[in-house]
Amino acid sequence: MRWFHLVVKVYYDLPRVEEKLIIKSLESHGLETVPVNVTKEPLPLQGIEEHVPIVRAVSMFRSTYTSAVLEANGMKPINSAYTIMFSGDKVLTYSALASHGIPIPKTVIALNGDSTEKAYASVGFPLVDKPPIGSWGRLVSLVRDWHEAKIVIEHRSMMNSPQMKVHIVQEYVKMPENRDIRCFVIGGNCLGCIYRVPSEGEWRSNVALGGKVRALKDSTEPCELAVKAAEALKGEVVSIDIFEGKEGYLVNEVNGVPEFKGFMKATGINVGDEIAKYVYERVKR
Amino acid sequence: MRWFHLVVKVYYDLPRVEEKLIIKSLESHGLETVPVNVTKEPLPLQGIEEHVPIVRAVSMFRSTYTSAVLEANGMKPINSAYTIMFSGDKVLTYSALASHGIPIPKTVIALNGDSTEKAYASVGFPLVDKPPIGSWGRLVSLVRDWHEAKIVIEHRSMMNSPQMKVHIVQEYVKMPENRDIRCFVIGGNCLGCIYRVPSEGEWRSNVALGGKVRALKDSTEPCELAVKAAEALKGEVVSIDIFEGKEGYLVNEVNGVPEFKGFMKATGINVGDEIAKYVYERVKR
Amino acid sequence: MRWFHLVVKVYYDLPRVEEKLIIKSLESHGLETVPVNVTKEPLPLQGIEEHVPIVRAVSMFRSTYTSAVLEANGMKPINSAYTIMFSGDKVLTYSALASHGIPIPKTVIALNGDSTEKAYASVGFPLVDKPPIGSWGRLVSLVRDWHEAKIVIEHRSMMNSPQMKVHIVQEYVKMPENRDIRCFVIGGNCLGCIYRVPSEGEWRSNVALGGKVRALKDSTEPCELAVKAAEALKGEVVSIDIFEGKEGYLVNEVNGVPEFKGFMKATGINVGDEIAKYVYERVKR
Amino acid sequence: MRWFHLVVKVYYDLPRVEEKLIIKSLESHGLETVPVNVTKEPLPLQGIEEHVPIVRAVSMFRSTYTSAVLEANGMKPINSAYTIMFSGDKVLTYSALASHGIPIPKTVIALNGDSTEKAYASVGFPLVDKPPIGSWGRLVSLVRDWHEAKIVIEHRSMMNSPQMKVHIVQEYVKMPENRDIRCFVIGGNCLGCIYRVPSEGEWRSNVALGGKVRALKDSTEPCELAVKAAEALKGEVVSIDIFEGKEGYLVNEVNGVPEFKGFMKATGINVGDEIAKYVYERVKR
Ligand SMILES: Nc1ncnc2c1ncn2[C@@H]1O[C@H](COP(=O)(O)OP(=O)(O)O)[C@@H](O)[C@H]1O
Ligand SMILES: Nc1ncnc2c1ncn2[C@@H]1O[C@H](COP(=O)(O)OP(=O)(O)O)[C@@H](O)[C@H]1O
Ligand SMILES: Nc1ncnc2c1ncn2[C@@H]1O[C@H](COP(=O)(O)OP(=O)(O)O)[C@@H](O)[C@H]1O
Ligand SMILES: Nc1ncnc2c1ncn2[C@@H]1O[C@H](COP(=O)(O)OP(=O)(O)O)[C@@H](O)[C@H]1O
Repeated sequence: MRWFHLVVKVYYDLPRVEEKLIIKSLESHGLETVPVNVTKEPLPLQGIEEHVPIVRAVSMFRSTYTSAVLEANGMKPINSAYTIMFSGDKVLTYSALASHGIPIPKTVIALNGDSTEKAYASVGFPLVDKPPIGSWGRLVSLVRDWHEAKIVIEHRSMMNSPQMKVHIVQEYVKMPENRDIRCFVIGGNCLGCIYRVPSEGEWRSNVALGGKVRALKDSTEPCELAVKAAEALKGEVVSIDIFEGKEGYLVNEVNGVPEFKGFMKATGINVGDEIAKYVYERVKR
Repeated sequence: MRWFHLVVKVYYDLPRVEEKLIIKSLESHGLETVPVNVTKEPLPLQGIEEHVPIVRAVSMFRSTYTSAVLEANGMKPINSAYTIMFSGDKVLTYSALASHGIPIPKTVIALNGDSTEKAYASVGFPLVDKPPIGSWGRLVSLVRDWHEAKIVIEHRSMMNSPQMKVHIVQEYVKMPENRDIRCFVIGGNCLGCIYRVPSEGEWRSNVALGGKVRALKDSTEPCELAVKAAEALKGEVVSIDIFEGKEGYLVNEVNGVPEFKGFMKATGINVGDEIAKYVYERVKR
Repeated sequence: MRWFHLVVKVYYDLPRVEEKLIIKSLESHGLETVPVNVTKEPLPLQGIEEHVPIVRAVSMFRSTYTSAVLEANGMKPINSAYTIMFSGDKVLTYSALASHGIPIPKTVIALNGDSTEKAYASVGFPLVDKPPIGSWGRLVSLVRDWHEAKIVIEHRSMMNSPQMKVHIVQEYVKMPENRDIRCFVIGGNCLGCIYRVPSEGEWRSNVALGGKVRALKDSTEPCELAVKAAEALKGEVVSIDIFEGKEGYLVNEVNGVPEFKGFMKATGINVGDEIAKYVYERVKR
Repeated sequence: MRWFHLVVKVYYDLPRVEEKLIIKSLESHGLETVPVNVTKEPLPLQGIEEHVPIVRAVSMFRSTYTSAVLEANGMKPINSAYTIMFSGDKVLTYSALASHGIPIPKTVIALNGDSTEKAYASVGFPLVDKPPIGSWGRLVSLVRDWHEAKIVIEHRSMMNSPQMKVHIVQEYVKMPENRDIRCFVIGGNCLGCIYRVPSEGEWRSNVALGGKVRALKDSTEPCELAVKAAEALKGEVVSIDIFEGKEGYLVNEVNGVPEFKGFMKATGINVGDEIAKYVYERVKR
């Protein structure tokens, strides 16, 4: 009964509601938990003793590197470095999705300013431009004409990060209420989906920008797609953002360190508990 | 005979000697080549027609994104986005290597300043500190005492990129002449290895820092390790840097868009030709 | 006749047409010139021997620091560190102008994102937003509504430089043809003024953005204002940008390391020669 | 009795002990005070009604711009934009001091990496290298040999800010206990001076780095120099850092938004009160 002696380590930087809920649920399942602050403890590539790792740093790079360290030590963190890295970078996410035959919005990548103008011309206005790295809707821009195009291209060209100079140029998918759909998948099972509806005066549905959540009556169809998307990114515990395009559902994003406060509120599902159950089963295996 | 109609596209940003040699060799093998400047042309995630892609942008992000776009279109670029991304980030490389049981230097990852001091204390001086992203030896620092430790930690903390704040803290591997070994692997076959010897007054062997190259008489042992390392990173055309540690060879690095001018000079092997032959065989399959 | 033994040193980083013209004119006036590349030579705060310094580095910081070094050594460079620094930062320029009673556009400074929204509300759309540091029209944005406001504010908040987070929020001054006026002042004398007319599809008049130049028939009025502006910034050799507001002329900018290719073309005035004459007179004094 | 109706506005971003003490003292002198958070309120270049402004933002740029705005409105903030800007940039400070004949450490400015090596060679090891902008000792580096030289030069070259690429290269002034001297000057009067002694294992005396403070028995001589330094920078309320060089005192720094907690502790002087008295007198004038 080897798993009895294991502890579950939860790696974090800034503890959110989610991390606290996960720890509480794990402990109520009788699992010993140890929170590890990855900004305080060095992480050795060799010699970490065996345990079950859940990686929950807010910073995408910190989460990726933490999982990478754990994998170097022979462990299988939730989620893997691959999942966090590839779902944390929108170009890599779209690529993984499309190469698995999953529908995504019509998208063109421009690696610098010059080619961005051509990309805009090929997609046509209105269009959406976003950088590969980012969350909470930050820098996701709805560009309506060449005047706005110039503003976005000039500003992005002055940013120092090489990734920020990259433009993901995308058809603007017009959706009912501008809402999108978020589904939650654990170990290949879809817990359900919610709508996220932008606040007044905002076109982006992010909760950080005031978006409101509401459960779907029937999640069957988006759930099916979400499970495939999770699989494409090899994600064990992930949320998936889906658009309702004119010709069907499109996957927009996979989150490798998913927040789930809003999802819990809208659906009543105790996500922390579901994660704990999954971990418990995995440990027993 | 479908492959006859294919062209080989070579994706580049700043054309180096290597890109020119590859194109020349491909053409002398009767393959039609089209160079594509990724800083000028937008790259659509959908609708690229079939061809054989070789990705050779100097910028790691440009190469990664180019391969990602090609994979979204169902192609198999040399190298894959996974290989370029994971070999382009030293934490991810060490992680992939170690998780495949390949020996690497004793290494501790510190995600910010505080934990870096602890990491230094655990590794001991002299030690090597480097950021996850970088080439040509840049910012790879031999830290001899706490005075130098503070200089490195303070300077890195003032950099803006989240990756630059991450410290890879590593035992200093003392090698004969401070030289290291570079091997070249194509499609699972090792072409051979060279020594890189640092220039006078420099401890790093990078050619960009004046390092001199010299072929190994017998590459058998490092070649074996190099092939395993290439496999761990799923690299089709890669070079591998190896240290001679006290207790055996250690893999330090995998290059997913490898330069090979120095290797050619030292070994007399026409690497461009070897790549062309490999591509030719792959196309025929 | 002490000045006979003096040389005129021209401090530069990237030599433009202007630097070459100045050197040529100085030499044709019998002055010995020595070009100094400030990116190659260290600049000591003590012990520089006496000479006449003209500071012409393209980089504002390099020019400012070069003049500062020369002043530390007791010299009087053209222009002074104060002039270059204060005319190189738009907040400091507007402040120096306004405190000397010179009319400027209605302007509000916002030191970060939150206060920028309030500043926008107080100025009203359409408005102009620009950062304190910058040239060639870069990031100078015409903001027409709240949608564009958010794009500008979000993008600027993601830039790392503290100055880039600062917003200069300004009434949009509607001018005939969108043109503005540039005058050239040397030693308190105005050489004349030109119009700069934006290219098709662009609202900014910068020559770097395709603006066309044309001499004014009568420069009397703007010249008067330009001389006062030069004085407010203590500039010896400067150009001044002026807007034609509804209620009169407004000074928008002073350039402490002025380009003058376009001015020469439009007016036929040999600016290099005028600078040489001024230096010659100053040396003789 | 016009001044009765005036209020003293204290402009801040992050309120420290110092700001609170100043406000308390002003009020105990019967002056009405209004704290203004410069990160929340837009600052108009025109139309601010008359009051006495004290500028105390921690961020150098915010303080400079706040004073600049107030000057545009015809006011005389403590301190002026010129004082804050020029004392906030070490190259400009040294320049202002030296051009007024005030002794400073032997210093060479290098505007990029190449010229830094030459500057190091001309100054000799051990030397001190620091960037123009910065506080609390950050990035101030004691460089003992070429190994450390390379570390500093490489790291600084990777920073994005143009100022961070500039190197102030300076003789290392060996002082008793590594201590330096800080004097406080208000309206041309020196309140006294303290020693700042570095903590164990640190060569820099900054309190932020653990430095301890202690009053001087006799401040006459450094005070004389401090008053001259304050004058050179046109500072009304400033602190001045002084080194004891082999051949006499050297001024190292002027602080335009001075902290004074440590000074108060060591000397028992109520600096907030002294500032309030000065403001009261100035208002009455
Ligand atoms: N192509 C698009 N068409 C329509 N809306 C979009 C599109 N892309 C993004 N959005 C909106 O913007 C929001 C944020 O974009 P997203 O790509 O999810 O970035 P982030 O990871 O920062 O949330 C989405 O939730 C959606 O509401
Ligand atoms: N741990 C180490 N021990 C000894 N030498 C090292 C170590 N790490 C790096 N080096 C030296 O520094 C060089 C550059 O380091 P590396 O990790 O390869 O970075 P880069 O990708 O920038 O070349 C190596 O080729 C080697 O000569
Ligand atoms: N407030 C304004 N109203 C109208 N046009 C403006 C305004 N501010 C700037 N412009 C236009 O934008 C151009 C660039 O702005 P400016 O402030 O001169 O910045 P830069 O120093 O980058 O040239 C100006 O030459 C002018 O054509
Ligand atoms: N040239 C020097 N010689 C000796 N010590 C120095 C020298 N320059 C700086 N220091 C030490 O480093 C501290 C910080 O340097 P300083 O130039 O004052 O920068 P900061 O503004 O960040 O405090 C000083 O207080 C002093 O103790």
